[in-house]
Amino acid sequence: MLSTLTDKWAALAIAALADGPQRHGELARRIAGVSQKMLTQTLRKLERDGLLTRTVTASVPARVDYALTPLSCDLFPVMVAIKTWAEAHMDRVFEARAQFDARP
Amino acid sequence: MLSTLTDKWAALAIAALADGPQRHGELARRIAGVSQKMLTQTLRKLERDGLLTRTVTASVPARVDYALTPLSCDLFPVMVAIKTWAEAHMDRVFEARAQFDARP
Repeated sequence: MLSTLTDKWAALAIAALADGPQRHGELARRIAGVSQKMLTQTLRKLERDGLLTRTVTASVPARVDYALTPLSCDLFPVMVAIKTWAEAHMDRVFEARAQFDARP
Repeated sequence: MLSTLTDKWAALAIAALADGPQRHGELARRIAGVSQKMLTQTLRKLERDGLLTRTVTASVPARVDYALTPLSCDLFPVMVAIKTWAEAHMDRVFEARAQFDARP
């Protein structure tokens, strides 16, 4: 489960849903570069972990909305902390790797 | 790199080193259940990412000390936030999974 915290697509889906419930198509448009298959897998994994709900409205055609849960709302500050740390420090990680890999 | 944040052995190594520089043997004793091979791989990965330093002292036998870096010190609060979230919420995740998996 904790790998969800650092899963790019999961983080982007949770961030998008922070604006409120959305449909698959809306999420696909908002999350640049995500394939339909990857988005479907990610949403399913998040639903299974209790991090989002999937509500089907029996209209014609049926409407499916995804929404955050209290569990994912609690998770949001942690994901923001990870994102903030990564944005501030990834350059230094890449520098460290380059030096490490250049060693004899 | 971000997977390091949710890597159990990396988190335990960083937490142990928060008490100051230590040798491989000390870390092996402090991190319950870690194999020599896993600890060596984890320390090497953390060193490569710039999250710890490995200092060799040319004594006989040679002495190798591992220590945190400013980069990992900055990472520490994020790892604590992840640990705190996990401890408070993993039961609900497991419950959600059980319900999801029990669905027809």
